[in-house]
Amino acid sequence: MYDLVIQNCHILQFKGQTAVVLPNHSIAISDSKIAAIAPDISAGLSRESIQAHGMLAIPGLVNAHAHIAMSLFRGAVEDVPIDVWFNEYIWPMESNLEPEDVYWGALLALAEMIEGGVTSVADHYFATHEVAQAIEQAGTRAVLAWTIFDRAHAKQQTKSMADFVACWHGAAGGRISTWLGPHSPYVCGRDLLAQMARQAQEFGVGIHIHLAETAQQVEQSIAQYGRTPVAVAHESGLFAIPAIAAHVAHLGKGDMELLQAHGVGVACCPKTAMKLGSGVAPVAAMRQAGITVGVGTDGAASNNTYDILEATRLLALLQKHEMRDPQSMPLVEALSLATRDGARVLGLNGMIGELEIDMQADIALLQLEAAHLHPRHDVVADLVYSAKASDVDTVLVAGRVLMQGRRLLTIDKAQIMRETAARRERLTQRLPERRIQTYPSNENPGAASSK
Amino acid sequence: MYDLVIQNCHILQFKGQTAVVLPNHSIAISDSKIAAIAPDISAGLSRESIQAHGMLAIPGLVNAHAHIAMSLFRGAVEDVPIDVWFNEYIWPMESNLEPEDVYWGALLALAEMIEGGVTSVADHYFATHEVAQAIEQAGTRAVLAWTIFDRAHAKQQTKSMADFVACWHGAAGGRISTWLGPHSPYVCGRDLLAQMARQAQEFGVGIHIHLAETAQQVEQSIAQYGRTPVAVAHESGLFAIPAIAAHVAHLGKGDMELLQAHGVGVACCPKTAMKLGSGVAPVAAMRQAGITVGVGTDGAASNNTYDILEATRLLALLQKHEMRDPQSMPLVEALSLATRDGARVLGLNGMIGELEIDMQADIALLQLEAAHLHPRHDVVADLVYSAKASDVDTVLVAGRVLMQGRRLLTIDKAQIMRETAARRERLTQRLPERRIQTYPSNENPGAASSK
Repeated sequence: MYDLVIQNCHILQFKGQTAVVLPNHSIAISDSKIAAIAPDISAGLSRESIQAHGMLAIPGLVNAHAHIAMSLFRGAVEDVPIDVWFNEYIWPMESNLEPEDVYWGALLALAEMIEGGVTSVADHYFATHEVAQAIEQAGTRAVLAWTIFDRAHAKQQTKSMADFVACWHGAAGGRISTWLGPHSPYVCGRDLLAQMARQAQEFGVGIHIHLAETAQQVEQSIAQYGRTPVAVAHESGLFAIPAIAAHVAHLGKGDMELLQAHGVGVACCPKTAMKLGSGVAPVAAMRQAGITVGVGTDGAASNNTYDILEATRLLALLQKHEMRDPQSMPLVEALSLATRDGARVLGLNGMIGELEIDMQADIALLQLEAAHLHPRHDVVADLVYSAKASDVDTVLVAGRVLMQGRRLLTIDKAQIMRETAARRERLTQRLPERRIQTYPSNENPGAASSK
Repeated sequence: MYDLVIQNCHILQFKGQTAVVLPNHSIAISDSKIAAIAPDISAGLSRESIQAHGMLAIPGLVNAHAHIAMSLFRGAVEDVPIDVWFNEYIWPMESNLEPEDVYWGALLALAEMIEGGVTSVADHYFATHEVAQAIEQAGTRAVLAWTIFDRAHAKQQTKSMADFVACWHGAAGGRISTWLGPHSPYVCGRDLLAQMARQAQEFGVGIHIHLAETAQQVEQSIAQYGRTPVAVAHESGLFAIPAIAAHVAHLGKGDMELLQAHGVGVACCPKTAMKLGSGVAPVAAMRQAGITVGVGTDGAASNNTYDILEATRLLALLQKHEMRDPQSMPLVEALSLATRDGARVLGLNGMIGELEIDMQADIALLQLEAAHLHPRHDVVADLVYSAKASDVDTVLVAGRVLMQGRRLLTIDKAQIMRETAARRERLTQRLPERRIQTYPSNENPGAASSK
């Protein structure tokens, strides 16, 4: 007896470098996993069933880099340079955050992600206990990194981090992993990075860090250390453990080899890269070099949405544009970034990212009966270049139905929207010199190290 | 007595270079125009009313360059270079088109556009009688250009073009204009361009043409004529009449001045530019030079969607990326491209593109109660960077309701999807050497002129 059977949908599977669609098949689920995929599985063999006639089943999408609670700052700061964005807006506003704000902000983003078929996220933020609670309640999957800025901050929080890992690593039925999150080499010295590497090793967890997002960060790293941020991260021991490097838009000589040799996963966030005008990772070249790349949204303060269909489309379009080559980043590669490659970046390969027997049943079902998805020449093309988050009808994680017929089943969206709206005004207050950190601008290059 | 009043919505208006939102206002409509905008207009003063509590009213979006019937080829050809795309796929497949196919393809795109709040389009295609019939039925607004490739084709069709203009210019209550559409200087010689300019002048209509989409087209033009495609178009007399130039991604010295001096409207299609890796118009610089720019989708064969919210977002992101400047293409400028500037490109300024008294009542109402639009710091930021076509709830053109509660009222979407699906297989058949035209590739530079 299966727990659940999804009947009569089209199932997207990867076969090596290609994708195939099994038409009018059923998926049976037991113990949170995919137990069978076959042309017809009778509803009588299962405790529950979902009629998915004509829908497309895809692996739940993976968001490889986000700050989900930053949904609270969506649209609050637009059209400004990155140093102004950090120093005059984001970091002052983040100094207003209470743990409960983070909880509601995380839930808001999770509502949006479930509605867009995004079932897993690598998150990087403060108040991670509250983020974990939100994930547990929403029923999705996450790798949660605890953001650390500087040494004093880290020292004071060492015990808290240990508690967080003890409390949440492998929690929520294995849906939550806890990683450490030194913010970036430009606000964390090498000693701190080395300390984080040792602690992560001790805890048996990975590291999630921002690397080389802007050209100026690379210049500054070379001026300060004589090497690139990637090399600094490597020398500090961060690549000796599982690592996610977000952005990595600006590479120096040898950086690509370091990332590849140590299996560092890269999270490319194309919408942030374009919006901030900070440049984008050479994803096509990275993949050719054997580096695993996933697609991230980043936080809604810079990216405005947690929509992985949108981010994947942008990533593919931007690679073609950068290479001036329409053959770069073909359909299946783009789709792979958002699913099986994203899973690998999160260290969850073999567990999620593909619809195969014994994988976790993290599934999004898309309604294909839409004008913008007609006529159907190629469902993969439609998915990468035409589908919208609003086409997602039903979402499962670990076999549990989180949304059906676009109705969220685990969280109360109306309450979340009320709670976040009520916090909006307080969170955008900015007090002189009150900010959680200072971004090293050209005018103020030593800002970070002076802390 | 008004014909219709839209009650209690938030109304987006432009005030010079800024945008304002009038909260909880009503819009009264009479004789297809906006008759009043006020905080409260009683339903008793109007024959009909729409309750739009909490919704955002924006000007109907303008698609400044499209081939709407190419919805028929959505997703049919992906990841190939532009010459292969034309010569091996699109132009062979287009040789299968019958006028009735074009009619259903146009309706499919119109369904998608209405669902995404797009109320006007500058279209460029064959079988324009059928496109016009589709527009008339759907109830939207269009500037329809009759595509001409070469001299023989033009000669044979001169009378037909005259009939088309006589039959449709100003038709459908003024919602349809007819322009002439010489395809591009790379498949139309200078004599033909000059002939088209004379004919357009005689008919009292404008010209819609593709210009300088790729660097190779510019090189070839210089090799053949010693001048850029923009200069060729100008010298052929095309700029002496209202003109839309699509793409214009590659400019030579003096081109910008020509476009500005003659008031040529540029239609930038960012998704096509990125997908084909062909480069993008320097939109920010063009605007600074005083050139009017609109945003287009192009055809779904290259762009996959007719979604102007998506295209506007891409255009803004791409300008910031190209300039490596997050301050480039700020929110209101981006929004302006999709509305009032688009209207100017179509020669419809003063008539559509803004929500002001005496303008045509072309209005999209967006539902804002969505997780991805919360909390609401800045509704313009939400519109440009977060909103989806699926947030559009209600659409009016010339005061007539075309969609309400996402239900299309003028066209039968299910029938359109059946009709286009039934044509799919026949339309993708490709016969050796059968194509409507040949794209001049590097291997075959004389292909076009040899016709």
